[in-house]
Amino acid sequence: MAGYTPGEQVSGCVKLNTNECAFPPSPAVARALADFAAGTLRVYPSPRADALRAAAAKTYGVDTEMVLAGNGSDDLLTILVRAFVGAGERIAIPTPTYGLYDVLADLQGARIVARPYGPTWELPSDLADQGAKLLFVSSPNNPSATLAPRAEVLALVRRRTSIVVVDEAYADFAGESLIGAVADHPNLVVLRTFSKSYALAGARLGLLFGDARVVAELMKVKDSYNVNALTQVLGLAALEDRAHHQELVDATLAGRAWLEGAFARLGWSWPASAANFLLVDVGGREIAQHLYAGLKARKILVRYWDRPRLATSLRITVGAPDQNAALVAAITELLDALPSTDRGARDNR
Amino acid sequence: MAGYTPGEQVSGCVKLNTNECAFPPSPAVARALADFAAGTLRVYPSPRADALRAAAAKTYGVDTEMVLAGNGSDDLLTILVRAFVGAGERIAIPTPTYGLYDVLADLQGARIVARPYGPTWELPSDLADQGAKLLFVSSPNNPSATLAPRAEVLALVRRRTSIVVVDEAYADFAGESLIGAVADHPNLVVLRTFSKSYALAGARLGLLFGDARVVAELMKVKDSYNVNALTQVLGLAALEDRAHHQELVDATLAGRAWLEGAFARLGWSWPASAANFLLVDVGGREIAQHLYAGLKARKILVRYWDRPRLATSLRITVGAPDQNAALVAAITELLDALPSTDRGARDNR
Repeated sequence: MAGYTPGEQVSGCVKLNTNECAFPPSPAVARALADFAAGTLRVYPSPRADALRAAAAKTYGVDTEMVLAGNGSDDLLTILVRAFVGAGERIAIPTPTYGLYDVLADLQGARIVARPYGPTWELPSDLADQGAKLLFVSSPNNPSATLAPRAEVLALVRRRTSIVVVDEAYADFAGESLIGAVADHPNLVVLRTFSKSYALAGARLGLLFGDARVVAELMKVKDSYNVNALTQVLGLAALEDRAHHQELVDATLAGRAWLEGAFARLGWSWPASAANFLLVDVGGREIAQHLYAGLKARKILVRYWDRPRLATSLRITVGAPDQNAALVAAITELLDALPSTDRGARDNR
Repeated sequence: MAGYTPGEQVSGCVKLNTNECAFPPSPAVARALADFAAGTLRVYPSPRADALRAAAAKTYGVDTEMVLAGNGSDDLLTILVRAFVGAGERIAIPTPTYGLYDVLADLQGARIVARPYGPTWELPSDLADQGAKLLFVSSPNNPSATLAPRAEVLALVRRRTSIVVVDEAYADFAGESLIGAVADHPNLVVLRTFSKSYALAGARLGLLFGDARVVAELMKVKDSYNVNALTQVLGLAALEDRAHHQELVDATLAGRAWLEGAFARLGWSWPASAANFLLVDVGGREIAQHLYAGLKARKILVRYWDRPRLATSLRITVGAPDQNAALVAAITELLDALPSTDRGARDNR
């Protein structure tokens, strides 16, 4: 098997390829880091990240017993698969989506049933009919950036045939969440990450919200001390600075709007984004590959997949204003270098 | 299934129950923490912890491709089980040993074959004859603190019927390691942790040494970003301060010698320790339980298991000098409170 290939991590590049936050984390994180006594690293961390869970429960309006902390939400995804899916059993996903679900199924000896998204990224109507133990719905979906309508997701959940995991890595940019529905739906699990809207990808922190009985089962599967002591403290500091969190979201949405203006002027199209990235259709597979390679040569990284439904598009993370400007300037140069007949959508302005 | 029960983490207690280092980590760790720019937490960490692996390879005299970093060695144990053991397949261990091996087998749907240690903690002679995909040998063994002789372990490895994982969490206190044998034995894997001799239990860091092909397979199973950015930097700082590491080991060995003197005066016995803890036989099950509970009431935590071969013993971590003195004073009080007929071994002086 192949394993998951994460986006490239290359120093000295403008990184618009892994959907990190363009801005630094809360000043409260820097203060918590400065105040952290290195000597306390001598002892094991809180096994269940108690203070962080209690704060997350308060912030998101659930009971502490409904929260599980993970070493990134990837850790939580692994725990879910190990807890609920046996070898030979099924995991259902809409496709295309986050590539890790496939890899985790493979590692577990489980079978992925992938049902295609509709033409405007509607959830597949038969997703709940696949005899799967787990359904993964990334919403907003990576890489389309589209939000699954709340009513459609809850309709899946109410079939009660499987655990439905809504991976809300990007939900803070959508301003809409299903965490509030967890209390009434024991087979609904919602995942959050601190890697995007909290600007803490380097710290590795994810949160899971689910029924207390589900969380109790997952606790047995996780590593005893899965979240290190520093990350527990830094995550708590980030979580409690609600004003700065809102600033990060607002600045990202402003950058997204600026990019959308620039891409519209190029004649490009994209599904309406509810995330901190855009899946822009640049009008052709060869143009997409030309731009991907040309940007990389200029040390600007974006994401490209030569796969059905994605081959004519680039997934571009919203950067800081100077990064966005550098990106658009580079794209303009690269398009101008093309023979005019190859410029695709650009000529359809 | 029950999950793994870690030792209690209770604040305000003298913690001699989870084999943490009694002393703080290297001052270089505090400096690295102070120098760490919080803003860089915005981006994902190095997926493979490249700088740390290169430094570990240099320190331990192997190639970088033979090193894998984990979110604690528990993460590495999980990765090994997932990579090499299918549902229904076998994992062989000598017993009693670290309780996590059992739990990980259970999670994987694998079968544990547990063969008893010999009367003076010799490795079971039939350990390699169990048709197991993986053998776990904790050496020095938790909870006996005994070192498996190098020749006996290599004899197991040379049978080449399974991957032999030597869990060397405590090897720095033994001054002996099998890491140097990995290059010549493709089915030998050695694990190290930063939770004991490097005093970084709170940071979560483990290292695995194995054949480059084995490590490449394990890389596919691990989470993409399993070791956070801070831990990579702090682990590197601790690793490179060889002098301080030796001081931690020396201070621990001095504390162990002091405790051994005190326990000898109580008439207790224990297997020769090659670790930072002692498995002391206090002469009876009821005395052991009386001491465990009495120490806990005095806010001194040690480890007790009411299980075959362990029920008359306590596992006691070597503490700082004041902690060791407090422990021995409390034990003396608790023994003096017993009716003289119940004092067991103490009266056999």
